Amino acid sequence: MTVGPPTGMRDWLPRETAYRQQLMETIGSVYRLYGYLPIDTPAMEDLSVLQGKGGGENEKLLFKILKRGDKLARAQAEGAELADYGLRFDLTVPLARFVASHQGKLPKVFRRYHIAPVWRADRPQLGRYREFYQCDIDVVGGAGPAYEAEVITATERVLAALKLETYRFRVSDKRLLPLILRGFDVAEDRMSPVLIALDKLDKVGSGQILAELQEALSSHQDAYKRVARFFEEACEARLRADLSLDRFEEHMDSALSPAVMAEIRSVLLGLRGIMESVRFVNPSSAVLFDPILVRGMDYYTGPIYEAVVEGFSSSILGGGRCDGLIGRFLGTPVPAVGCSIGFERILAIQQQRDAGGMTGYPRALLLRTAGDDVGLQAQAEKLRNAGIPVETYLDPEDMGKQLKHAEAQGIVWAIKEVKDDFSLIIRHLPTRQDRAMSLAEFQILFKG
Amino acid sequence: MTVGPPTGMRDWLPRETAYRQQLMETIGSVYRLYGYLPIDTPAMEDLSVLQGKGGGENEKLLFKILKRGDKLARAQAEGAELADYGLRFDLTVPLARFVASHQGKLPKVFRRYHIAPVWRADRPQLGRYREFYQCDIDVVGGAGPAYEAEVITATERVLAALKLETYRFRVSDKRLLPLILRGFDVAEDRMSPVLIALDKLDKVGSGQILAELQEALSSHQDAYKRVARFFEEACEARLRADLSLDRFEEHMDSALSPAVMAEIRSVLLGLRGIMESVRFVNPSSAVLFDPILVRGMDYYTGPIYEAVVEGFSSSILGGGRCDGLIGRFLGTPVPAVGCSIGFERILAIQQQRDAGGMTGYPRALLLRTAGDDVGLQAQAEKLRNAGIPVETYLDPEDMGKQLKHAEAQGIVWAIKEVKDDFSLIIRHLPTRQDRAMSLAEFQILFKG
Repeated sequence: MTVGPPTGMRDWLPRETAYRQQLMETIGSVYRLYGYLPIDTPAMEDLSVLQGKGGGENEKLLFKILKRGDKLARAQAEGAELADYGLRFDLTVPLARFVASHQGKLPKVFRRYHIAPVWRADRPQLGRYREFYQCDIDVVGGAGPAYEAEVITATERVLAALKLETYRFRVSDKRLLPLILRGFDVAEDRMSPVLIALDKLDKVGSGQILAELQEALSSHQDAYKRVARFFEEACEARLRADLSLDRFEEHMDSALSPAVMAEIRSVLLGLRGIMESVRFVNPSSAVLFDPILVRGMDYYTGPIYEAVVEGFSSSILGGGRCDGLIGRFLGTPVPAVGCSIGFERILAIQQQRDAGGMTGYPRALLLRTAGDDVGLQAQAEKLRNAGIPVETYLDPEDMGKQLKHAEAQGIVWAIKEVKDDFSLIIRHLPTRQDRAMSLAEFQILFKG
Repeated sequence: MTVGPPTGMRDWLPRETAYRQQLMETIGSVYRLYGYLPIDTPAMEDLSVLQGKGGGENEKLLFKILKRGDKLARAQAEGAELADYGLRFDLTVPLARFVASHQGKLPKVFRRYHIAPVWRADRPQLGRYREFYQCDIDVVGGAGPAYEAEVITATERVLAALKLETYRFRVSDKRLLPLILRGFDVAEDRMSPVLIALDKLDKVGSGQILAELQEALSSHQDAYKRVARFFEEACEARLRADLSLDRFEEHMDSALSPAVMAEIRSVLLGLRGIMESVRFVNPSSAVLFDPILVRGMDYYTGPIYEAVVEGFSSSILGGGRCDGLIGRFLGTPVPAVGCSIGFERILAIQQQRDAGGMTGYPRALLLRTAGDDVGLQAQAEKLRNAGIPVETYLDPEDMGKQLKHAEAQGIVWAIKEVKDDFSLIIRHLPTRQDRAMSLAEFQILFKG
């Protein structure tokens, strides 16, 4: 009988689990440096919480929990909703609910991070799972651009801690592109297809995007030409990664009416503040202004950003200001800035980079050389008292099998003997060299 | 609009989350000392996995996942099962499935721990939740009593690391009580009600248990008298916590037939090996033989154990040998020894002990004294570079409000100024004393 985890879901073997836990701990420890604290919420929420406004497409992907007992029988008899709960599909809806549930207990400016699994009944495909981890940070109740600057600075420190050196952080504002398109006389009903086309830039070639723009603006040739030119220039700027806000403003000034430019200038002023602040605080920041950044989600209301890593087509994290989202269950709007790290994507990049280097949690193997189980365990205990993780070989196998087991498990150090005076005979498995040493010496070797 | 988590489920505020994470990390780090490694599995499993043999009562408490789309429509039309998956109700069934799914990749003796939430649609009541964490360790593929000794020794080290000093570790064997009852001529069909009555000893008074025994054995007065006497003696021994295997064997010898005693002796021999080994390896072990230990679960096949803490009626952990359980999906029996720690129960004990001492992750607050956001963030960054977690007060509030916020958040250190030469003006909030010091001095103070 072969049996696996449910479709699109995964088991984690010890080495992968260790790797995932260490990644979570690295991310968490950096955010804690900025005063962001962990919270947790249940895997499921009331359906009414999950099905309100805010979930967008993800609501369709809900895993629903069947009602139980009498309630289920009643729902079936009445043709009513068969489910009462659903598994969370993101960490934003639970945050909005959490903020409403605990409002009296939270500080006015509430910084939290949340690293946890979410579930989506998506069609499983390569690299897309039905259970996956998200890693969100949000600051709720903070209204000024200083909060955006803090989130970006903190997140760049996470990327540095993960040794992702070839990333770029793209920044724009959700309001910017619609203003520019309006300035190009794109009709209101054409706005959405144009934005959807532009949003595909990381995934498809620019040729396809131009074709989609042409189709979207088929009866507006003039607007199409202006949008296409803007798009091509912005693509070049993205490639060169050197577009300054000043140059962009100057360039737009020559193309757009003064009325539209006045609005654009006010948006750019906010972005300028954020970017200057980030660069002042972190001179090695890779933050770039990118006017064709779309970030699909409807809920953004101001600055938006994402980070990309060279060689990977889609962004590894994204976020922005979403002032309408978190107040949903409070009945009053609350300013909020957030960032969601693509945990599984970063893990894939890390694993590719560290291929084979995933060592998991290291441990030594205490070999069964002679003596009984009890003596062997007492020896192991001495090593553990010194803080060394030790697996004891308890079955009566010959030395060859024991060493083979150690090598198969990626164990580097085998302990052949623990003498009464705490001196050890150690085998370094990769070189198969035996050495006598003191426990203190081995402690240093093992940890180094 | 007030809205909370689903019935019987909980949110975790930052301080509680930190406390829970630290508890998990303490438990995990001790088990890793013994070569146990973490794994993880999906929250849900195929219904067929969860509904087979082995779940017992817990199967009835399944949260089931509603089928989706066409599959749901078809199931409704045909009156078939509406669900395809279920949330795991323990970590043992997923382990059995995991071992079958990955058999080629696991070592012959596979030691793992798993700390994760499980879900049971139980009637919510005080201290019982519908989502709660379990913490299981198991060694799969190890057949001798050395494995029991290892699990007990490792688990006692966990209890020591958690500073639970008043615990006792009770050990017996699943086969022992039925043998004794048979020796007392308890009829086969009376075995189960007698064992169920004895299993309640931690929860109800001995008077009630005697009454239940009387009822169970109402037409077997002779057997009742012998069982009742045995029960009273065993209760006294449990209270005195001084029953040795030798004394027990001698005592039983006078009450039971030689044929029954031969079988009992073979069980006691195994227990003696385990207990002597544990005491040899850990001379301060609080391991005690306890012949009325029942451990309700059907799946135990040999030695069983549990730990109790003074002042708490139910056990904080329990486990034993369950050789039939893990091989379920392999189609071949596999020896296995496990232990499940009552994570939520230990947490409750710890919280009660540390009341108010739950500090969460400490952080300093950088006050907004003068200057702009950018300067403030640059100052904070210097502190973070030195490894000090710093929350920056970014809103323009007066000093009183800022200090009030810090105190409400349990923050101990406020930073009033970071000078260009990295010297600091620090306020110790509990005493409201200001002091000038170097960054290096503050690092030591903060971490101490």
